[in-house]
This record gives sequence, structure tokens and C-alpha cells, in this order.
Amino acid sequence: TAMASCSWARAVRGLLLDVSGVLYDSGADGGVPIAGSAEAVRRIKASGLKLQLCTNETQATRENFVRKLRALGFDISVAEVTAPAPAACRLLRERGLRPHLLVHDDLIPEFAEVDKTNPNCVVLGDAAENFTYANLNEAFRLLIGMEKPVLISLGKGRYYKETDGLKLDVGAYMKALEYACDVQAEVVGKPAKKFFESALAELGVPAEQAIMIGDDIVSDVGGAQQCGMRALQVRTGKYR
Amino acid sequence: TAMASCSWARAVRGLLLDVSGVLYDSGADGGVPIAGSAEAVRRIKASGLKLQLCTNETQATRENFVRKLRALGFDISVAEVTAPAPAACRLLRERGLRPHLLVHDDLIPEFAEVDKTNPNCVVLGDAAENFTYANLNEAFRLLIGMEKPVLISLGKGRYYKETDGLKLDVGAYMKALEYACDVQAEVVGKPAKKFFESALAELGVPAEQAIMIGDDIVSDVGGAQQCGMRALQVRTGKYR
Repeated sequence: TAMASCSWARAVRGLLLDVSGVLYDSGADGGVPIAGSAEAVRRIKASGLKLQLCTNETQATRENFVRKLRALGFDISVAEVTAPAPAACRLLRERGLRPHLLVHDDLIPEFAEVDKTNPNCVVLGDAAENFTYANLNEAFRLLIGMEKPVLISLGKGRYYKETDGLKLDVGAYMKALEYACDVQAEVVGKPAKKFFESALAELGVPAEQAIMIGDDIVSDVGGAQQCGMRALQVRTGKYR
Repeated sequence: TAMASCSWARAVRGLLLDVSGVLYDSGADGGVPIAGSAEAVRRIKASGLKLQLCTNETQATRENFVRKLRALGFDISVAEVTAPAPAACRLLRERGLRPHLLVHDDLIPEFAEVDKTNPNCVVLGDAAENFTYANLNEAFRLLIGMEKPVLISLGKGRYYKETDGLKLDVGAYMKALEYACDVQAEVVGKPAKKFFESALAELGVPAEQAIMIGDDIVSDVGGAQQCGMRALQVRTGKYR
């Protein structure tokens, strides 16, 4: 009935979970689980709800990311993780783009199959220590030298919380290059609609039967709502 | 007469000159003069026109900047240079602001007299090699920790040309911090109206009798026109 379809608890069949700030606080030390989160993942799975991690994590391949989460006590497999790098590889293939990568060293294997000779676009991830003055100038020069600069950004987060404090996220560096080159980046990852649609497809649940849970009001909550999902903002992670 | 006051050549009594890209191309090697520019400075002065350099240079104190220009053959004194750092110091004093500096090492002496303990604002210059991941995170954390973040940027240029290629300018890093902190920077330097007014005061010529000459369509030409000056864009420097 119409009434039943308006109920909050109706037909929730799957959850999309953000990871950093929701399941754990990341950090150079490997990070620290947020209290109760590993148990929550277990109980969600035991309840029969489907679960997919929907992350903008770009500091590691999905394989290494999952290895880290498992070491922290999370019962997660690679297939349960939707991340920007594989989505970017699909986009590069579809459009015949050859990237110059400004990403974290540990993400580079995700692009192993991609032709990177004579680049005609720049792919920007959360490069962390690779965000050097020299690397940013190099990416900028490549872009400004293109007839039509193509900048692909793996997320557009402002900042995130690590165990030793807040860190600038990829979105800040995206804005720097956008401004310098007078170009608008194409965002792969949250809050892009296409990215949530991929996550829902992997979850195997339609938008109206899924809930997104995250700590970022733009990337997590805003992005999910644009796809017709309900969303919850947790008060852990970067929540202030 | 009204006609005479419309003539282009009417009553030009002074010139404001941009430096990088107009008089010389800067670079780690000290830079290279643009052909004919030292001679042009000499002829302008010999003609009786007043001349003031109006620069967003923030990689050196005015003293060292003038020393470099003189070594390249330019007949210039410190009083003939209007630069952002002294203007920023006036602003900091007026408003009781204590800066955290993210600037080039060689600019730091300009802030010698300024109280920098327990910072309540961030001053951003063209920090070049000091634009490290760690330094950007530090400036970001200070800003995001302030009740009302105050970001003062010495210019907002997109990029400039050095002898070894194009470099990201302070404006790109300003945009990164603006985005991360959801704050708007206050720009000291070109194209700020107040900065051009200082340069005109030092030139000793009213706006309608002065011409600005530069290679940047926003910082030089746009800024000058907003102050009622005429402006010319040269086709050297970053002109593309």
C-alpha cells in the first residue's frame, strides 16, 4: 500500500557503508577500528541484509585495502568493495584516454592494464606524500599543454581524519588544478551518480531499498540522495 | 576640453609595470631579462614619466628582489617597488592578526616585526618548494581549527612562467585551502583594488593619468581597470 511504502523501515534490503570515518579511522599506522564497527558488520551480515562498502579510498588497491580491513577484524571480501580506481579504468577504456597518474604509489597497480604512454588526460587520486610541488607542477603542465584538458578526479572530498589528525583530501588538489587550468574535473567516485549506481548494482539492491551510511555530508549523504537512496550521517570520523 | 580628455595619449604621467613576464622571466637561475626591457626602463625614466613596479612577487624581500633586478641591468630602487608582503604587514597590524606563514623562505624577513605566536590567521604566498604535503596540511589544520578561519593570500595568480617552464602560482594553493575550509581568502596584491591604490600613491599619479602594463589579464589588466586605470597586456611571459 501507499502507506507501507512511506514507512522508514519498509523493504530495506541492503546497506552501502562508507569506510574511513565509519568503520575505522585511517592512518599511517594502519588505522584504528571505530568501537563496535566490526561487530556491526557481523550483525548486518547475520541479519540477511546485503552489504557493500562504498569508499573513495585511493591509497591502496582494493586487494590491499581489504587485507588491511581484515587484519583490523572486518569480515569483508574484495567483491564487497566499490572503489574509484576500477571505475576510472572503465571510463579510461571507454573513452580511449591514456592517463598521467598523480596518485598514491600503492594505487598504481590498479592501472597496470591501462596504456599510459603519451598521456591525454590526468588522473588525480589522494596521492598523499606524492602531492609534491614538482608533481603538481608536472600534472599542471601536462593539462595546460592539452588542446582540451581532461582532468579525472577520484573523489572530491575536502578532508578526512587520520589517527594523527585531519588531512587535505583529493578535492583540494582537484580545485587547485581546476583553477590553474580553467577546467572542470570529472569526478569518479562519490558523490558521482554513476559511482553509486555501480555500487548498487554490485549490492544487487535497487536504490529505494538501500541505505547509505557515511560521515561526509556531500560525498556520502548528498550523493546517495541524488540516486534516490536514503542516507544517514554518522557522528564519527570527520564529523564536527 | 572634453575631446582632449578622451584622447588616449592625454596626460599620461606615470606607468605601473608588472615585473615577471614583462621585464624578465624568473627562474631558479636568477632569471633572464626580456629583450629590450632594461633599455625601456631607462627610456621611460629619461622621458620624465614616473615609474613604479607593481608586482605580486613573494619569493624574496623587496631588497633582494631589487638586488636581483639591478644585477640583471634594471635601474630600479626599493622605493620603486610595490609588493604584497609590506601591504600584508600593514593589514595584519591594523586588524591585530597573528599569522602562520606559508611562504617562501626568502620572504620571511618581511614579517620580522610581526607577532607570530598563537596564530589567528594564515598568510599564503608563492611558497614554491615550501608547498609540501606536510606544510599544506599544517596550514589547513590551523584554519579549520579557527572559529572563523582567516586566510590571507598574497595574490591569486593561476600560474607563471619561469625559465624552465610554467609553475603553479599561489592562487592554485589558495583555492585548495578555500575549498577544504569552505572559506574565502582575502587577497593582498594584484588584482586587489587597495593594492593598486597603494601603488598609485607611491607612484604619485592619479589613476586616470597612469597606465598599468602586465602579462596577466586578471591580476594586471582587470585589477587596474577596476581602479580607473588604463591597462595594456604584453605578449611576453605567460601570454599564450
